[in-house]
Amino acid sequence: MSIQPIADIASLCAKAGVENAILSPGSRCAPLTIAFVRHPNIRTRTISDERSAAFIALGMAAESDKPVVLICTSGTAVLNYGPAVAEAFFKRIPLVVLTADRPPEWIGQQDGQTIYQDNVFGKHVKFSANLPTERDQPSVRKQVQQTISEALSVAQIAQPGPVHINIPFREPFYPSPDDKLIYENPTPASIHEENHELSDSEWGEILEKWNNNNRKLIVAGQGKTDNLLISILCTVTEEHSVPLVADILTNLHGCPKAVKNPDVFLLPWVKDNDPSLPPNLLITIGDSTISKNLKLFLRSCEIEEHWHIQTGDFPPDPFQSITKHLPILPSAFLSELVKRAASPSSEQKDYFELWQDREKAASDLVQEFTKNCEWGEFKATAEVLANLPDCKLHLANSMPVRLANFVGMQNSRTEIYSNRGTSGIDGCTSTAVGASFVTEKLVVLLTGDMAFFYDRNAFWHNYRIENLRIVLLNNHAGGIFGVIDGPSDHPELEEYFETKQALTAKHLCEEFDLEYYFCPDAESLATSLAGFFESGSGPKVLEIETNNNSNKRVFQEFKKRISKLA
Amino acid sequence: MSIQPIADIASLCAKAGVENAILSPGSRCAPLTIAFVRHPNIRTRTISDERSAAFIALGMAAESDKPVVLICTSGTAVLNYGPAVAEAFFKRIPLVVLTADRPPEWIGQQDGQTIYQDNVFGKHVKFSANLPTERDQPSVRKQVQQTISEALSVAQIAQPGPVHINIPFREPFYPSPDDKLIYENPTPASIHEENHELSDSEWGEILEKWNNNNRKLIVAGQGKTDNLLISILCTVTEEHSVPLVADILTNLHGCPKAVKNPDVFLLPWVKDNDPSLPPNLLITIGDSTISKNLKLFLRSCEIEEHWHIQTGDFPPDPFQSITKHLPILPSAFLSELVKRAASPSSEQKDYFELWQDREKAASDLVQEFTKNCEWGEFKATAEVLANLPDCKLHLANSMPVRLANFVGMQNSRTEIYSNRGTSGIDGCTSTAVGASFVTEKLVVLLTGDMAFFYDRNAFWHNYRIENLRIVLLNNHAGGIFGVIDGPSDHPELEEYFETKQALTAKHLCEEFDLEYYFCPDAESLATSLAGFFESGSGPKVLEIETNNNSNKRVFQEFKKRISKLA
Repeated sequence: MSIQPIADIASLCAKAGVENAILSPGSRCAPLTIAFVRHPNIRTRTISDERSAAFIALGMAAESDKPVVLICTSGTAVLNYGPAVAEAFFKRIPLVVLTADRPPEWIGQQDGQTIYQDNVFGKHVKFSANLPTERDQPSVRKQVQQTISEALSVAQIAQPGPVHINIPFREPFYPSPDDKLIYENPTPASIHEENHELSDSEWGEILEKWNNNNRKLIVAGQGKTDNLLISILCTVTEEHSVPLVADILTNLHGCPKAVKNPDVFLLPWVKDNDPSLPPNLLITIGDSTISKNLKLFLRSCEIEEHWHIQTGDFPPDPFQSITKHLPILPSAFLSELVKRAASPSSEQKDYFELWQDREKAASDLVQEFTKNCEWGEFKATAEVLANLPDCKLHLANSMPVRLANFVGMQNSRTEIYSNRGTSGIDGCTSTAVGASFVTEKLVVLLTGDMAFFYDRNAFWHNYRIENLRIVLLNNHAGGIFGVIDGPSDHPELEEYFETKQALTAKHLCEEFDLEYYFCPDAESLATSLAGFFESGSGPKVLEIETNNNSNKRVFQEFKKRISKLA
Repeated sequence: MSIQPIADIASLCAKAGVENAILSPGSRCAPLTIAFVRHPNIRTRTISDERSAAFIALGMAAESDKPVVLICTSGTAVLNYGPAVAEAFFKRIPLVVLTADRPPEWIGQQDGQTIYQDNVFGKHVKFSANLPTERDQPSVRKQVQQTISEALSVAQIAQPGPVHINIPFREPFYPSPDDKLIYENPTPASIHEENHELSDSEWGEILEKWNNNNRKLIVAGQGKTDNLLISILCTVTEEHSVPLVADILTNLHGCPKAVKNPDVFLLPWVKDNDPSLPPNLLITIGDSTISKNLKLFLRSCEIEEHWHIQTGDFPPDPFQSITKHLPILPSAFLSELVKRAASPSSEQKDYFELWQDREKAASDLVQEFTKNCEWGEFKATAEVLANLPDCKLHLANSMPVRLANFVGMQNSRTEIYSNRGTSGIDGCTSTAVGASFVTEKLVVLLTGDMAFFYDRNAFWHNYRIENLRIVLLNNHAGGIFGVIDGPSDHPELEEYFETKQALTAKHLCEEFDLEYYFCPDAESLATSLAGFFESGSGPKVLEIETNNNSNKRVFQEFKKRISKLA
């Protein structure tokens, strides 16, 4: 079996923009390993735990905006990719998963490390193919190239996402030491995005609705920092008086008029008491939102028009209200819209002020509350975010992303990321490690104890993560179960929901040579932060130990205060 | 939404033999958690890392021969079960996987912790169902009971295996504190095994072939200790002169005449040099075999008749030679056969002696080699196995199971287990932890550094594992890549195949309060073993540090010695 068709795969990946591959050790995947390691333009790293490997690749792809290749051997190795592949699918991050397999005749025949790999990721990949086992025929070699090109294109266009190519190998797996791989300049993978342009009659219809609806609202979902979009949204809010709801993961904290606290002021929202808040024209951009209260609010509104602006196919409809999908870049749509739109009506201006007033009240409450509440993870999160240098901030599920969203982010030079495609705790550290591989900037992960200990294999490799800082909120339990309604009423709370655990990060830091800071109170935190964030001296973990019961008290008090906002 | 249909599920599971459930924390699965925790006859434990949770459940089911329930919340939690579910499928171990899900209308709509859970395990479960979301109608409640009964039955009959029930839940997830669950005595799940009996004419045909074929060979695959089978196989070997090939995972080490070293004496086997060894009637029982050399030998033989004796459906055919599948318990078939069969011919006796001679030569070589080879994991494994008290011995993939198979097991009171359904390294420790939960006996895991550090979350819980002893062979690399042909010829060997890592188990043992023994040489090992295996004083880890290069030298020398056996 010639290795050359496998070298072609590496060449095609490089041509399509792949700069990084994460490999995991295995013998059956040796031809893939050798072909990618030797390619001059692809940087390879090896990670032994495939679950972590896949989240590291995800973090690299998310940070670099380039597809990352994953390579593993046959068997359950492949299934360990499952969680990160699903996150990549719902978060729209391009991963190119190459799995080695047995030839078809030995599948299900009790060979070792053999499972059913064909289409094993089901609906969680955008494209899935099984390569032929015999690949030396010139026509088959061409077919393989065509399949790889299609996969690389599908991974990147429209809504990006993961693709899977399963590749059967017969022994011998290792080329002869004299075999030279030829990295040809292959037929380029055709990667292009269809650009939808609205016709004048479509614009006519859109403008009529825009100008005639006087309770227009824009809700942004998570997205990367996009300075063009930020500047247009500033115009839309300030000159067209359209309220913009933007949580911490939208990376729109550069918009001064953005409404950031819907989770606070929509908690007590009751339709009959407050009929003026629902929009009649809702425009959504980006992916999902964090706030459950915002979601429940929008689901209960009777929205006449809801336009979703996003490139790609038919979108999800989280509020069950979309009336029109415009497959255009939001910045392109909005910049054209503001050129054509009439000045805002006085009703729209009032609607804008209504949302600004609510936001002001919520924001004041949060600031005052944070300043005066007792020590705990709420206050600690505020202190950390206030002292954060410019960085890439990763927020782990499930409490850290919520806490950070309550506290808010002021620094528009800090870009924020979270695994909110599936909102799992399973790979948050690995994802941050992956990001640190491909940026020179400081990567800061704010995480909780459950997510941190779950994904501890993120550190099990030999690569430098000097620019990584981990802030660990350790309350020795799954704190979220103490603050949501329900579990506290049941005797199962501590063992089965909160799942108390006594660990600290100390031993783990010793094991993996991470510098360790321990902060059990406000004073130690205040004195530690500056040194902790100093660049060029990492990796480091700063563990903030808090008491789960006092965290619960703070959160209950916060909810009580919120409920009086209405 | 009433919780009673969920309480019914717990009742049905208990009725069908479920005694244990492993839960992982989550809110959407709260009704399942509460229903199972409160059931008086089901013991529940909570494990936070779902990958580890599923392997722990697998270990409990394998050890107890009873189905174990797994419960998790929606999202990637489910995908983390993937590796253990596949192992359970190929290893034929009954797991009942209950996953909580969103109602169908919110799937794919950017809700948190939501993936496509319907049939998510694909071909790796024997049965998969999605329960209806509304379950309060009496007829729906009955339908749910029927589905659960079917799943429980399928999990246990014929070839046992994993089954998956996906259960959508709407809020509220938590019953009112006053709600009392009623654990009724439900309609029993119908679990029965069809017992195939051979007719007289079938026996006639079988006996004719048995009596007329004079090179009969029995090859056993992995299986649990079965004293009835052992005693019948003793009769078959000693009175009917049929050679029995039985590696360490067959648990047939109670058969004195078993051939245990095919991996040694079949390595240099060349058909033309040695035409007398292939059988003309091959009988196989049990699951897969370890020895690759045995497999290649049997694949290359032209076997006229190959009967596979195993209950259940159409079996895998690893040597591509099965001519007849008899769906009967091997002990039942063989005990009837020896009653009816003629005395062995002189040719069959010669054939028996031929295999005994080969075995003797191989066994002598192994013993002599082990005694005189330089210190390393080969010698250490022999020392550990020789000093093992009666126990449940778990062998991790990939080198430990091979090393133990070379060295061999003499003590027939020690039952041996390994995850050889898919032969992954990903859950070997968790599987041993699970076994230790359900037996009073000592559970000893012999593992390597890659498997040990991969599955380190096996210890992340609050339950007692006092009867667990872990012997860790740490050569700071994936040692198997140094001993197989191929990788050593390539510059990628150290970074991408062996994946060197510098860790020792010391920090991990401190973190999880495991007593730690460190043995870098033969002397320290010899003095440590007795105390290490002492019962009632665990859990403990004994780390044997060896040098990967000297291990490779030993293995190369071993292969050289073997190659001269022919």
